[in-house]
Amino acid sequence: MEHIIAYKTLLAFTENIFKQIGCSNTDAGIAAKALLAADLRGIDSHGVARLSGYVRLWEAKRVNAKPTISIVHETASTAVVDGGSGLGLVVAPFAMQVAIDKAKQVGTGWVSVNHSNHFGIAGYHAMMALEHDMIGIAMTNASALVAPTFSIERMLGTNPICVAIPAGNEPAFVADLATTTAANGKLEILQRKSLQAPTGWIQDKDGNASTNPHELKGGGALLPLGGDRDHGSHKGYALGAVVDIFSAVLSGANYGPWVPPFPAYVPMPENQPGKGIGHFFGAMRIDAFRTASDFKLHMDQWIQRFRMAKPINETQKVLIPGDPEREAQAERMQNGIPLLNAVVQDLKDLGERFGIAWEMPDA
Amino acid sequence: MEHIIAYKTLLAFTENIFKQIGCSNTDAGIAAKALLAADLRGIDSHGVARLSGYVRLWEAKRVNAKPTISIVHETASTAVVDGGSGLGLVVAPFAMQVAIDKAKQVGTGWVSVNHSNHFGIAGYHAMMALEHDMIGIAMTNASALVAPTFSIERMLGTNPICVAIPAGNEPAFVADLATTTAANGKLEILQRKSLQAPTGWIQDKDGNASTNPHELKGGGALLPLGGDRDHGSHKGYALGAVVDIFSAVLSGANYGPWVPPFPAYVPMPENQPGKGIGHFFGAMRIDAFRTASDFKLHMDQWIQRFRMAKPINETQKVLIPGDPEREAQAERMQNGIPLLNAVVQDLKDLGERFGIAWEMPDA
Repeated sequence: MEHIIAYKTLLAFTENIFKQIGCSNTDAGIAAKALLAADLRGIDSHGVARLSGYVRLWEAKRVNAKPTISIVHETASTAVVDGGSGLGLVVAPFAMQVAIDKAKQVGTGWVSVNHSNHFGIAGYHAMMALEHDMIGIAMTNASALVAPTFSIERMLGTNPICVAIPAGNEPAFVADLATTTAANGKLEILQRKSLQAPTGWIQDKDGNASTNPHELKGGGALLPLGGDRDHGSHKGYALGAVVDIFSAVLSGANYGPWVPPFPAYVPMPENQPGKGIGHFFGAMRIDAFRTASDFKLHMDQWIQRFRMAKPINETQKVLIPGDPEREAQAERMQNGIPLLNAVVQDLKDLGERFGIAWEMPDA
Repeated sequence: MEHIIAYKTLLAFTENIFKQIGCSNTDAGIAAKALLAADLRGIDSHGVARLSGYVRLWEAKRVNAKPTISIVHETASTAVVDGGSGLGLVVAPFAMQVAIDKAKQVGTGWVSVNHSNHFGIAGYHAMMALEHDMIGIAMTNASALVAPTFSIERMLGTNPICVAIPAGNEPAFVADLATTTAANGKLEILQRKSLQAPTGWIQDKDGNASTNPHELKGGGALLPLGGDRDHGSHKGYALGAVVDIFSAVLSGANYGPWVPPFPAYVPMPENQPGKGIGHFFGAMRIDAFRTASDFKLHMDQWIQRFRMAKPINETQKVLIPGDPEREAQAERMQNGIPLLNAVVQDLKDLGERFGIAWEMPDA
């Protein structure tokens, strides 16, 4: 069973919850918008379904609702931001703005962030660059669920990368991808539907291929993009590793198996080498390379040519990265956001607890 | 049958060939060193086996041995370099040096290159940053052999990305990867050995999975990292697309199906939208983020921790990106470079044609 909730209703509710845990009005607005970008773009696992998880992190004092976010080191084109243990949903837009401001000055800006928390979807932050005629890049590490090639130990998060590239008449190119074969959210969908996973997504605790979407509970692991060595898993592992190093070794955050877990009931790893979760952001001004008009002309041609690439089946055209999410956003902004019963109940409970009215359209 | 040739012998020979086609002494030295980095690092498909291919590109007037390489646009942290139709092996080190010089000034440097040719292995160029305590990034587009997800048309090259990251006592982390399941060189090995490819590497002309390593001759295509949609090929496609856009749409080079082919006998695509092949380089000064000593301490810990990750089998430890190539380099620098008979014959023919002595240790 699904409920359809209007975006505005959900945004107001989420904003109110963030205010209730102590966020300033401004921060609550920023965090709610960043979180709901996931729901709008069809990445349901990273959106409002996690709101109660964020609240539990605040209860566990792992999230500071009134963080001091500061630049602790910088050059003309770089900065390290200390997120002050704030919501990643607030820290990330701050840091991305620093990258954009530096790009305005010297062509590009690059910001590595420590002492943060989960930031929602990478795409939201990277796309902040688009309105400035800049390419935006966002990545983050996350708690370890992924086994490197040849290993049975979970060492990396799903460590997503987003690259957002402006176009002219065409919509922007937005590649937003976990560096694993499948993101954890896809496993959750299979679990709910009692379906098996394709091979290459997960392995069991001994490193054997598995199709059981519950395998992680038994000590299994997600697999890097590629799945196994023969299919290039060492490349997915390398990409996830780059995200980890840019986000955390460069900034002084925790890396590898030391990254703080999202569920507040999971104990923090011992002997952490850094502070919080790490992110990395980049902004590159298009006209630092060529005129924006020339770039957009060719970017449009790139997109149009790839859209016309001969398909295997006429029923499934070739897509441009970002197409499915943009279509979901248009549809959901218009018609509302579908939420599972369990999520709605979770939100109602939250609302009751904090005295926030939950306006159900069908209630 | 294999011949083992000393690195110095092969380097001197290669340098002489580049001089014979008209390269300056300096450029011939740079090009030979860049080309042979592939042989040293065990990436045999991209090394001296391609020397006669480069010569044929020069004969076809697609490569200018005396190029004017110039910065055509720049900001404090960015530049576009016109490679003047030179050897990519010469243009790429020039452009990477521009990125390094900019990083010295403002923390990072980012250079997009047009009007170039194939540059050998990405790793060689990215690793130039290491001695400056910088992270190096190199990528290039290449002629279209790869079908995007849902397509039967070859639209992208194998478009490799290299990220080289310095460490302290540990050797550097060097991830150098084609954005396909398997690089074309791996298919060539299977062809020579008459072996089948794993599924997920290639598809036939109709888009069906295939294990025939000769499939590309019949109109088939290499597949993006991931292999098929269920296994994340849309992510490999997106990564290859980012490489194409950064290398060519940003610089004014050719992109997608318009990238010039490496074999000189293949006609140039019609209606090309840009100039030559494109590359993209980045350099980030470590101490633009935190002190180099702090970074190296944690990078060493990162590497040591991942090396200790519990393996599936004790006989195959977890590797750090760059390990296999570094071991090959140490071994081959010491013991010489193994070359197939066909490659040796090709080089001897080249030598005869240009009057260059080919000193075979076993001749």
